Order: sequence, then structure tokens, then C-alpha cells
Amino acid sequence: MKLYSYWRSTTSYRVRIALNLKGLAFDTAPVDLVAGAQEDPAYTALNPVAGVPTLVLDDSTVLTQSMAILEWLEAVHPEPALLPTDPVAAAQVRAAAMIVAADIHPVNNLKVGGKLKQMGHSQDVVVAWMNDWMTRGFAAFQALLSEDTPFCFGDAPGLADICLIPQLYNAHRWGCDLTEFTRLTEIEARCLALPAFDAARPENQPDAA
Amino acid sequence: MKLYSYWRSTTSYRVRIALNLKGLAFDTAPVDLVAGAQEDPAYTALNPVAGVPTLVLDDSTVLTQSMAILEWLEAVHPEPALLPTDPVAAAQVRAAAMIVAADIHPVNNLKVGGKLKQMGHSQDVVVAWMNDWMTRGFAAFQALLSEDTPFCFGDAPGLADICLIPQLYNAHRWGCDLTEFTRLTEIEARCLALPAFDAARPENQPDAA
Repeated sequence: MKLYSYWRSTTSYRVRIALNLKGLAFDTAPVDLVAGAQEDPAYTALNPVAGVPTLVLDDSTVLTQSMAILEWLEAVHPEPALLPTDPVAAAQVRAAAMIVAADIHPVNNLKVGGKLKQMGHSQDVVVAWMNDWMTRGFAAFQALLSEDTPFCFGDAPGLADICLIPQLYNAHRWGCDLTEFTRLTEIEARCLALPAFDAARPENQPDAA
Repeated sequence: MKLYSYWRSTTSYRVRIALNLKGLAFDTAPVDLVAGAQEDPAYTALNPVAGVPTLVLDDSTVLTQSMAILEWLEAVHPEPALLPTDPVAAAQVRAAAMIVAADIHPVNNLKVGGKLKQMGHSQDVVVAWMNDWMTRGFAAFQALLSEDTPFCFGDAPGLADICLIPQLYNAHRWGCDLTEFTRLTEIEARCLALPAFDAARPENQPDAA
């Protein structure tokens, strides 16, 4: 498998963690989002959103959108499980994951930041914008979690942890105040101590600058 | 089941369509987003994101996040299917759905529009912002679809159609130019001719103004 990704992309980071947790080997094909490589016609033919990640399977099947890729991974490589088998329990995990995937990340990515700058806003305003959405989202995320479990919803990391840890990377990057979110930063420390998460960290990617 | 929703919320609209397609009865509990009812502590206790929809099951289980609710519905009420059984085919449908759920809708919702206005932008600028994200997203969405199928990915509506139709409602509302997207508007016409979609339309909700 080949994963088209960018080292700092939090959606790429999600898929790297999941592939590592499932024990699946993959090659990294870097897409330099800052240089605009995602707009190259050869790349948009694979991924019409002009975003990362894109996972190309060994039979050349092309999968896009991190959350769709994670669901595919869970269906095809069910062990270790990223979601509970009980549908209600799975819905709780997916709901937390979707706070990151639909409420926090989409308003904070490079495209949105770039557009705000085109509209005349300073970097300081863009950073305040990102931190506002992260603060609101993390508060809601924390409210949904199980109490007193080592990971978001149990004794092992799952889909919610896979979405949380990359978003916390962004939170640290932009100086988001996390003092109210010790439950999340404690889970983060436990996750990053695991080889699957550590190998997926942005700074451990071949295109890290 | 009780669905907390807002008539013009496209995420509420998604869940209404799916409940109707599955033939499941539900009561509507309106949450007036424009009046700020989603911030009421009694409501945020149910849904800490302070958003809609929230689905409360007959046993009082609370489900949030439209995409998580749709996956729960599919698991518990599998007929008619919203997703193909083949994991790769399901990933293609989910990828299209996620273009709406993660790339288009989150940057266009009431919260983001309100924040842009707080930052000094006019309604015209906010509308141009929304239409820009919709145009980019619809182009990518259209590129992912099957060719020559009556619905997005086959002979019956599924998860991608359920996400597309509400987003097209917003596109019409804000005057988004859809001339390049005849494949999508043709699918829209077929969907809205179905009772499950028609009953879910914003203007057919009890809180429609």
C-alpha cells in the first residue's frame, strides 16, 4: 500500500496511526501541501478534493477521505478493533471522532487559514480562530468520553484516540491552552508511548522539515 | 425515537432522510439555532457540541453527530442498505459523503458564518465564502460518482445521496452556481421525487418558518 500524505496533515496522521495499530506496512508518498503539490493534475486525478491522505492499495484501488479509509481498514483488517462491536457503543466512539473530523479540523486546515489570510487577516487572527474552534471542540470531546479509562473509551486506543492525538499535535503547534483538558492530555501521553502512535508522529515522517 | 433538529440544518436533514428511508417513525423536537436554543444547558447536557441533530432512542440512549447516527442506523436497521456490503465500494460511498460532511458543511454552517460576521465581514462576503467551498466540494464530489447511475452510486439512494441533497438545499438557498453540476442536480430531482426525501425537506418540518 502507498499512502500519499503530508507530515503535518492531521488527517494523514490519523491513517498512519491506524495502519500501524493494524500492523500493516505501507510506503509514504509525500505530497507537499505548502508547495501546492496537491493541485498537480496527476494527483487530483487520484484525489479530486486535492487533499491528503490518499491510500492506494496493491491492486491500484484508490481510497480517499481519512474517515472512509479508517472504516475500510476496520472492515478488512478487524484486529485490533478500532470500534466496539455493539452499535450504540460504536456510535459513541464515532461521535467523539466526528467532533474532531467534522467540527474541529475542517475549519482549521491549511485551505481555510490561507483563505482567511487572502481576506486580509493576520497570522495572529488565524491562530486565534484555530484555537477558538479547538477549545470548543475539545470541551465537547472531553464531555463525551468514558470516565477513568486509560484511553478515550476503554483499555485500548480506538477511532476516537486516532482522531484526537493528531488534533492535539495541532493544538500544541498553535499554542492552544489545554489546561482544562487534562483528561485529553493524559490520554495523549499514553498513546504517544505506544510504538504505533510514535512511528506516526509528524516529526518521524520522511518529509518532515 | 425523538430527533432534536432544526428545519434548515443540513445535518438534521440527513438523519431525517435516513430515518424515512428505513421506515422508522420519530418525533421531531425543534431546536431553534437562530435563537440560540442549542446553548441551553438542558440541551448541551444531551449534546455537548451544542449542535443538531441529537437522536434520543426509546431507552433514553443519546446519539449525536449525524454521521455517527447514520452508521448506527445502518448497523441496527440494515434494510434498505445505505452502504454496499463490499468494503471498497462502501469506502467510495463514504468518501463522497465525507466530502460533504467534512469538506463542505463544516466551513459553511451557522457558527462559522456568525464568526465571520463578528470579524467584520458582510453577509455578501459570507455568502461568497460559502459558495466557494460548495463549488470546490461539489466538483470533487461529482468526480467521485459512478457514471450513468440514477443515484450517486447505483439504482437506489444511499449515504452519498443522503449527504448531497441537504447540501444542495443550501446551495440553492445561497445562490450557488450549479451549472457545472448537472449530474448532481439530476440526482437531486430523482431523490426529491421519493417520499422519504420529500418528507425530510426543511419546508416540511414543524418548525419551518
